[in-house]
Amino acid sequence: MTDLLGTPLGVLAVGAELFADSLRAQACPVDQVDWRPPGIGEPADIAAVATDPRRDEANRRAVGLVLAAGAELVDVVPAGTALGLDRGKFLHAGPPLSWERASGPLRGALIGAALLEGLAGTPGEAERLLAAGGVVLEPCHQHRTVGPMAGVVSPSMWMFELRDPVGGGTAYCSLNEGLGKVLRYGAYGPDVLDRLRWMSAVLGPALQAAVRAHGAVDIKAIVAQMLQMGDEGHNRNRTGTLMLLRELLGDLIDGGGPEVAEVVRFVAGNDHFFLNLVMPAAKLALDRARDIPGATMVVAMARNGTDFGIQVAGTGDEWFTGPAQVPDGLYLGAFGPADANPDIGDSAITETIGLGAFSMAAAPAIVRFVGGDVPLALATTRAMYDITLGENPAFGIPILDFRGAPTGIDVLAVARSGVLPQINTGMAGRVAGTGQVGAGLVKPPAECFAAALQGLAAAVPGAG
Amino acid sequence: MTDLLGTPLGVLAVGAELFADSLRAQACPVDQVDWRPPGIGEPADIAAVATDPRRDEANRRAVGLVLAAGAELVDVVPAGTALGLDRGKFLHAGPPLSWERASGPLRGALIGAALLEGLAGTPGEAERLLAAGGVVLEPCHQHRTVGPMAGVVSPSMWMFELRDPVGGGTAYCSLNEGLGKVLRYGAYGPDVLDRLRWMSAVLGPALQAAVRAHGAVDIKAIVAQMLQMGDEGHNRNRTGTLMLLRELLGDLIDGGGPEVAEVVRFVAGNDHFFLNLVMPAAKLALDRARDIPGATMVVAMARNGTDFGIQVAGTGDEWFTGPAQVPDGLYLGAFGPADANPDIGDSAITETIGLGAFSMAAAPAIVRFVGGDVPLALATTRAMYDITLGENPAFGIPILDFRGAPTGIDVLAVARSGVLPQINTGMAGRVAGTGQVGAGLVKPPAECFAAALQGLAAAVPGAG
Repeated sequence: MTDLLGTPLGVLAVGAELFADSLRAQACPVDQVDWRPPGIGEPADIAAVATDPRRDEANRRAVGLVLAAGAELVDVVPAGTALGLDRGKFLHAGPPLSWERASGPLRGALIGAALLEGLAGTPGEAERLLAAGGVVLEPCHQHRTVGPMAGVVSPSMWMFELRDPVGGGTAYCSLNEGLGKVLRYGAYGPDVLDRLRWMSAVLGPALQAAVRAHGAVDIKAIVAQMLQMGDEGHNRNRTGTLMLLRELLGDLIDGGGPEVAEVVRFVAGNDHFFLNLVMPAAKLALDRARDIPGATMVVAMARNGTDFGIQVAGTGDEWFTGPAQVPDGLYLGAFGPADANPDIGDSAITETIGLGAFSMAAAPAIVRFVGGDVPLALATTRAMYDITLGENPAFGIPILDFRGAPTGIDVLAVARSGVLPQINTGMAGRVAGTGQVGAGLVKPPAECFAAALQGLAAAVPGAG
Repeated sequence: MTDLLGTPLGVLAVGAELFADSLRAQACPVDQVDWRPPGIGEPADIAAVATDPRRDEANRRAVGLVLAAGAELVDVVPAGTALGLDRGKFLHAGPPLSWERASGPLRGALIGAALLEGLAGTPGEAERLLAAGGVVLEPCHQHRTVGPMAGVVSPSMWMFELRDPVGGGTAYCSLNEGLGKVLRYGAYGPDVLDRLRWMSAVLGPALQAAVRAHGAVDIKAIVAQMLQMGDEGHNRNRTGTLMLLRELLGDLIDGGGPEVAEVVRFVAGNDHFFLNLVMPAAKLALDRARDIPGATMVVAMARNGTDFGIQVAGTGDEWFTGPAQVPDGLYLGAFGPADANPDIGDSAITETIGLGAFSMAAAPAIVRFVGGDVPLALATTRAMYDITLGENPAFGIPILDFRGAPTGIDVLAVARSGVLPQINTGMAGRVAGTGQVGAGLVKPPAECFAAALQGLAAAVPGAG
């Protein structure tokens, strides 16, 4: 204090340059702080959406439906029959895009799927087929499906089938291949294809038999427990995987067959196996909030490696997109930032439901995988309460005294505060065929939210 | 502040009554605060131990040995052969005691063991045999063994055998039966004995075959991971159990046999199964610090349901005891405080190594099992740093930014501060045959530490 009183006085100016300029003109020392009011989108759109008389009730309804939804694993089935996915049609992560605009890892995964399905004999042949439009490409989200990373689904792949016992909906996700050189990270070498063939021939049928013998597995209950066991359900799924295994183990062994030990070792050896059950569980709940006029809740955040897109409860199936960002994080082996592709995958559905980075406070050890530190993990979850509409009492975060996970991203709150949703994510190699290069933290581009706000404003009755 | 200034002034007196008395004699209002300087034991003993020139180096050595120790599961074997436990000899938890002084749950477990071993045909017969001294009773700790709750080990029970690859020591613990009506909580009904017979006939041999096929399982590594997954290793062992199962699963299945599914379901269905591996891992490390002259580190805390005893690095195998306290916690079903037996079991070896309540900050969800709240979990771990000699870098506590678990209770620090070690524990029914009634929080009686301090003081060269 005494030091402060002995120091010459100065002026800090914030906001319009006008004030600082006047002071400078009077020879008064002044520091202009580089600051502008936070906020995303046009003020007129914010005003229109904020004053939409339907909004409060619509959001209350959206939150209620999302929180009430359940998620049970009811079957394991091939994509061809389950999704009516015909030969020559693939699904992919994120908003729609064509081969021309596809990034390396998505191209790599599509090439691999074409080889797997026997549509091409060599990677070169596959590339020509895809470039010529010889395969129909549609987003997973359009088919009650979510896909991690490239998210490519082709007819012969097996899928988890989840049902919401409350709302009655169904959602699908492929089986997780593990980390490293795998199709969803854009690798398509012989090992990758061999593993996928084994998954279709052995793993899928074994899981199908076990799930059918066991009966529905309550996935929402396992997710609730994960949060008490250091997982956040996006980049940490270690205990979720072990709890799923525990649930199915007896029936897997009863089902017998010479490959049981192999199946069990595969699942037990892949800490991310359960991600592919968290994702469809999240989609089941969020799909309940689709098509509620006036609701400003985000129902999907998804990336195709080129575009980041969001869908909102009040604006139907429209995608609001912006350029996908490159995550900042930790790299495997000798890989570095130059090797990383922009953000990719439907897995941000976990953040959209309040898991992943939104529940990072429940999983402080995740900072050793995605970067950052423990205070960041706590601060991230706390910040997400500022842009969400509800808290999920089923997903209690122990260290926050079991406060419910921040759930239901509010486009209006994001626009007003300028706080963007945080996402924990894997990083794919930029070059097709590389596979995983790391894991890190990323945010959506602000453009998505500005566009969604505009879409919501245009949908206000009496607007424009 | 303005309110404060308008209030009549009073005096708060702390310490000797002399001051308050003088003020009262002058008609000055005075409140005497009921406070005395913290501290346990005789000031002369504190001074003698504090000035022991060997102490610093001895404790440094003790901490170094404890932190360096490893723990591997190397075999599963019957107690009779492994421990040379002859017919008519049982081990029990805690410091030595006779049948006459044994509490209900310990008596119940001894009755059950006598029936299991065919030493008696009925509970009444067993009781008469035990009362007549027909069975030799010795503490587990005396036989390289630790036993949870009653901790009764009889020859036909199977034991985990752990080895320290650094120090070369061996430690044993029985297989965990599950919760509720089980022998270690003092129950001895037909169901309890049937389960124990199945464990000896099926579970033990299946685990033995799997461990032998697998090779040594690194238990210390699993404990390190548990702390990142919401377990504290005493009353939460959920992820530890699942990780052990994952490790042995392939070999269990390869081992085949019609009972594999049964074995796997038993282990997977018992969230406390791994406790019986954390305990011998802790004992292995702490045994390394035994018999270091001048060291004030606690190497065992153990309770037999009547006495709480501690052993200290600088005082050989002597037990320093005091009356076991009744835990304060949460009760199962209709049970209440009147049903609870005083503290029992060798499981406080987990706190002695820095796990259990000492690592409670890593397992905030434990408060739903033992009582208390999340701030208490954080405060407990923080307080334990004040009475411990080291921090275990292998056991990082994520929420404390991976600070190592507080390890190595210092008798001198406990005596000086008056802060007693915190313990998370199960609660056995007071009446033999009841089983578990709850779980809660408990502390050792201060007498143990006063007596240990006296023992350390007496051992200072030139003392007495």
